[in-house]
Order: sequence, then structure tokens, then C-alpha cells
Amino acid sequence: MEEIKRELADVIRAYHQKGWSPATSTNYSFRTVENPDVISVSRSGIDKSLFSAADFMEVDMSGKALPAYEGIRPSAETLIHCKLYQLFPEMMCIVHSHSMYSVLQSMKNRAAVELSGYEVLKGFEGIKTHETTVQVPVFDNTQDMPAFADVLEREKERLTVPAFIMRQHGTYAWGRNLFEAKRHLETAEYLFEVDWKISN
Amino acid sequence: MEEIKRELADVIRAYHQKGWSPATSTNYSFRTVENPDVISVSRSGIDKSLFSAADFMEVDMSGKALPAYEGIRPSAETLIHCKLYQLFPEMMCIVHSHSMYSVLQSMKNRAAVELSGYEVLKGFEGIKTHETTVQVPVFDNTQDMPAFADVLEREKERLTVPAFIMRQHGTYAWGRNLFEAKRHLETAEYLFEVDWKISN
Amino acid sequence: MEEIKRELADVIRAYHQKGWSPATSTNYSFRTVENPDVISVSRSGIDKSLFSAADFMEVDMSGKALPAYEGIRPSAETLIHCKLYQLFPEMMCIVHSHSMYSVLQSMKNRAAVELSGYEVLKGFEGIKTHETTVQVPVFDNTQDMPAFADVLEREKERLTVPAFIMRQHGTYAWGRNLFEAKRHLETAEYLFEVDWKISN
Amino acid sequence: MEEIKRELADVIRAYHQKGWSPATSTNYSFRTVENPDVISVSRSGIDKSLFSAADFMEVDMSGKALPAYEGIRPSAETLIHCKLYQLFPEMMCIVHSHSMYSVLQSMKNRAAVELSGYEVLKGFEGIKTHETTVQVPVFDNTQDMPAFADVLEREKERLTVPAFIMRQHGTYAWGRNLFEAKRHLETAEYLFEVDWKISN
Repeated sequence: MEEIKRELADVIRAYHQKGWSPATSTNYSFRTVENPDVISVSRSGIDKSLFSAADFMEVDMSGKALPAYEGIRPSAETLIHCKLYQLFPEMMCIVHSHSMYSVLQSMKNRAAVELSGYEVLKGFEGIKTHETTVQVPVFDNTQDMPAFADVLEREKERLTVPAFIMRQHGTYAWGRNLFEAKRHLETAEYLFEVDWKISN
Repeated sequence: MEEIKRELADVIRAYHQKGWSPATSTNYSFRTVENPDVISVSRSGIDKSLFSAADFMEVDMSGKALPAYEGIRPSAETLIHCKLYQLFPEMMCIVHSHSMYSVLQSMKNRAAVELSGYEVLKGFEGIKTHETTVQVPVFDNTQDMPAFADVLEREKERLTVPAFIMRQHGTYAWGRNLFEAKRHLETAEYLFEVDWKISN
Repeated sequence: MEEIKRELADVIRAYHQKGWSPATSTNYSFRTVENPDVISVSRSGIDKSLFSAADFMEVDMSGKALPAYEGIRPSAETLIHCKLYQLFPEMMCIVHSHSMYSVLQSMKNRAAVELSGYEVLKGFEGIKTHETTVQVPVFDNTQDMPAFADVLEREKERLTVPAFIMRQHGTYAWGRNLFEAKRHLETAEYLFEVDWKISN
Repeated sequence: MEEIKRELADVIRAYHQKGWSPATSTNYSFRTVENPDVISVSRSGIDKSLFSAADFMEVDMSGKALPAYEGIRPSAETLIHCKLYQLFPEMMCIVHSHSMYSVLQSMKNRAAVELSGYEVLKGFEGIKTHETTVQVPVFDNTQDMPAFADVLEREKERLTVPAFIMRQHGTYAWGRNLFEAKRHLETAEYLFEVDWKISN
């Protein structure tokens, strides 16, 4: 547990360096195969340039803080993490960015970002060739997290790759471990940027 | 005091790395709740890639160097800091950038940069939803600091978020502590850039 | 050998920092004048932000893992490395990027990227003046590595500088040692970017 | 001497990080008030990501290696440094970049880049207000260094700020010490970039 926390905290600080999480924004979580009903999620309000292993807290599958963490506020978007773990039981790590190219794509594409023919598409689990087209869904942003969790449940079949965009907000991506979640987010962000630059 | 100086110096070098303060440009300050009439401000002419805790000096609320610092020149824009602390008595830290997107926005927008619908708007204290529109005022640049301090006083009611732009110059942002001032500046700069990229 | 591995691993992590190899993508190799039939190539599936000297494996000139590495998967594109070493017997190091400007150039130029008049062209071995025009060939991307090796053999005479682009994929570059391969890749990528920015 | 070499080597590696000197490109020099006829200049062919204090060599005012350095090749552009020190006897340090925005500006502006109204113009020695217009001359690139030295001599009166551009090549800047030369180069590069972005 402590090792995953350190590794994920390293990734969080590196993503802040890339400009994906200005100030205190974005949130991250993981759980373990041994204890899948407990989610370690980033606390609210931590400056991501300074995020450390000590800045995670534990919540249950409904987003409620475990007794040891009572009174500490988890990230406002914890319910999104809970819903994704429920929809995809094999997934053990969720990462998030406020990358500008994700935001820009969401302002030009109403329902999805279509990505076609790029070698880097193979970064998404299960994709073996660049000769394919992927749709990354774009959902409207909201502050109503229970409502957004319902959207995810309703639109689950559109999540054909492990990533989606919230409009004018950013990208969520996930995987069976930190390594895979990281690969999926970096794949998505790379594709959003190169696709933006060729189209705009 | 020494700890805040070290933390702010770390932030200053990190902002230089982002390209927000070429060479010796930009300036920064803080004060403490215990002693709000003494301002620690960056000295003039220090290369921001090398800025250290020793490069602050103390001035009074009129911008005059305290006796221990006599003969040392504070930043040319110290009066802007003095006026902001006077207008906003709860504020304890002021940061500044010469970011290119701030300059670019100021060359396309006469009176204010309008920002609407972005999740990251919540980085500004008091904003709880992306469903809002913010106006960051743009003031003409000047070398006449007393005159500019008067502009700030006169236009105070336009400072609805803790940031403004000086035209072809850069952004000022502030907060109740370094953590909050940093959050406000990073929020503003992120929004200026993404908004520039969608509009231009 | 161990020293070259460490040096190349340092370069790989630095290139990841530049955004040239999202997540686990891209691959790298070297061989030595003393033992030119053994190629040290990056293993498949290693996150390039964490790549270390231990992440190389050895293959023969047909791309088959040496006995000590049996059961470990080399990079999927190992055959490209084998073919380049065969076509250019003096070359001892091959580097690769998924840089965005390489991808963008390949989407606007069918057969080659033409670069003319830039001082940095002198970074390509043998070029002594900016008053020259270089064609960097663009080949279609494929997952069929034996077929692509045939393309390289057939199109060898178009490789007038030590670099080519695979469409929507990235750049390969090579040299007589790591120092030269690195110089050739950085030269190509710099030129692709500046030429993109002046033309688009 | 050793301290200046270390400081300038640090700057050279930092500029490489910014993308201003792909691979082995660009060159740098300094001299001292005590011994102004000896120039310490970067050796030819050193990878700028690895440049160290040991990679300087000494030449005389005609660009000839001092006896201790016989047989070692100075940078190909050493004559430019010699001529600038001759034209501006107070100058003690010269820095150079291949920045993309310098190259881009030189491809759109035949004779000079005009910069007007930017606060950062004050980074050039002697400029006290943003209310000014500066012309940074653009000279055609050449491999004929004696001919280029003549151009500099002939066009000296156009060097009203301590910087010029060689077309499709990059920027030279200088100052009375490393601190000032660095300030002038960073000032020029910042202005070339922001001015490019507003105009293109």
C-alpha cells in the first residue's frame, strides 16, 4: 500500500509539472485486489506540486470516509471514482487530468473525440493496430456528482476505451493497476493534443 | 518568516522554469498576520532562476525600505504590492507573472478577459461551480507607480476575483497566504492559456 | 556495455520528458563494433519514464532473443532495427520517437518532408552548409514488420540523411554511436517542429 | 575563471533544456576585464545536454587557439565572438541560441524584428519604459565567417540593443558579464515568442 501511494504520488507531481493539474485541481485513486471495497483517494485541496503519499485517505464504495479518516474531506469527485470501480470491477487505479487539449477537444466535439490511424492508439489495452478508429466520449460537466454517476452507468457501453472527457473540465482514465491507468491517460492526452494540432 | 521565504523562493524558481519571469523580471511579496505593516518583497534585479530566501527585503506600507535594508533597492513595482495590501487587508501574499498568455490576452481584450464555463474557475476562492462567468480586468501598463496605485483604488470593485492583468506586461494575483496566492495565479494563467487557444 | 546502457537509458528518460514517448511507446537499440551481430534492444512494455539499463535485452541479427533472454519479449519493432543495421553496417545505435511534429508532418506530406536553408541541417552528418535541401522520407505505417523491412531495403537510396518517418507513428534515426544517433534525432525533430510552425 | 566556466556551463545546459540548442549546436564565450585579449569559447561538437566547465578552450582575439589548446577545434563561429568583442570593448560574455521563435521571426521579417510596447523590453540595458520601439536586426546566414564579421562591422550602428538574429539560424546576445548577457538573450527570446504568437 505504502509503495503504491509513493508511486502514485510521484506520478501526480510529474503530471502537475506537465501542466495537467493547476494548483489543487484533479484527483486520483487506487484500490487493491486483496481489499477492493476500500478506495485510497487523494484528499481535497492539496497543492499537486507538493502531493505526497500522506495525502491519500480511505473511503468505502459509497465515498464515505473510513473511521480513521473521519472529518477529512475526500476529493469532491470521489463519487466518480466509486462509480467507475463499480462499473469496471477489474479496475484498480483511476487517474485524472485537466489537460488543456482535453478541454479544447471537448469544446469542439459535442459527443466524442474521434481518433483514427495513430500508432499510439495501441496504448489503449486491447488495441493491436493503428488501423482502427476510437471514440472517446465527452460528457457535460456538472457539480452534481450523483447525477454524473448515473450518466456513467447509463452510458457505460460508450466507454469502449478506458477514458472519457468531462466538458471544459478534463480527462478520466483507469486501469487494472497504476502502470496501466498511467498508460491510458498518457495515450489519451497525447492523442488529444496531436489530433487538436492537425485539425486546428 | 524564514520558512515562508524559502517556500516562496521555491515557487519563484519554479515559475521561472515555466517561462513566467524571463531573466530578472517579475516581483513577489508576503507579510504576516502578526506584523501586517511590514512587507517582505523581492529585491530588484535578481535573476529569477537563482532567487533565494536571502533575496527578500523588508519595506513599510508606503514602500520605504526598513532601516536594516537601507540602500537596497526593492522591486520597482513595490507600490502595487503596498496598494493591494491596503485595499485587501486580509491578503498576506502577492505573486506576479509575465506569462505570455496573459500578455496575449491583454492585446486582444481592451477592458477584461471573460472566462466562462471552465471547471478550473473553481480555483478562485468563493467560486463553487463551473457555471459562472468571470471578468479579469485588464489595466493599461504604466511606469508611474503612484498613478497605477490610484487606478487600483478607483477600480477596486472590478477586482471580483483576486487577479488582474497589466497590458503587455503580466498578471498579479494574491491570497490570504502563499498557498492561496499560488492557487489564484495558476488558476488565472491556466484559464488565460486555454481560453487563448480556443479563441485564436 | 554497461556504460552505454546507462547512457542510453538516461537519453530515453530525457526524451520521455520531452513528450516523445508517451507511456511505454518507442524503442531503442545499440550494438558494438567488437560484436556487431548482437543487438541490445529495449524490452517491450517498459514505461519510458522509468527505463533503466536493466531494461535492455540481447537479440541476434534476425531479432531472435539470445538464450540468456529466452521468454522475454523484445520491442515489437525489433525487425526494423535489424534491417537498418544490415543496410548500414557502420551504424551502431538506433533511436526512435513518437514526437508530435513528426506525426503532424507525416499527415501533411505524402512522400517526404522537405527541409531547406536551416542552419541546424548541419546536425546531419556530412552536411556542411545551410544552403541545401534535404528530403526526409515518410513511409506508411504498418504492423507487418517483415513487410516494412522490405520497404526499407527497397527504398534505401532515399535514406540520404540518417532518419525517416513512419506515418502517424514517429521518427527513426541512427548513427555510428549513441552521440551521433542522438544528434541526428534531435536535428530531425527540431527541423520538423520549426518547419511545421512556419508552414501551418 | 573556473567559477564563471561552471556558471556558464550551467546556463548552457539549462538553455539546452529549453530547446534552444539541439544536440551539439550553438556556442558561447566569455573573457575577463583583467585579461580581455583571451576569449574562453565553447569547443566544437560538444553535446549541449552534457556541456561542462572543461568544455571551454582559450583563443586569442583573432580566433586562434592558445598554445595550451593547440589541435583542439573551437566553435566554427568563433570569429563572430571575436568581432563582437572588438566592436563592443566593454562586453565580456556572448551567448547564442537556435530558438525556434528566432528562426520563425527571421523567416517573416527581412531586415529586423520590430518590438513595441512590451514591459519586458526593459530587460535590454538602458531601456526604462515599455513605451518604446526596438528593432532587432536580422542578417542573412552564411558559412563564411570572415564575411559575416565584416557585415557586423558595417552594420554596427543597427545594433541598438545587444542582440541580433542570423536568418534561419538563431540569436546572438551579449553583455558586460554573464548575468547581463543572459538577461539580454532571455529578453530577446521571450519577445520573439510572444510577438510571434500575437502576429501569427
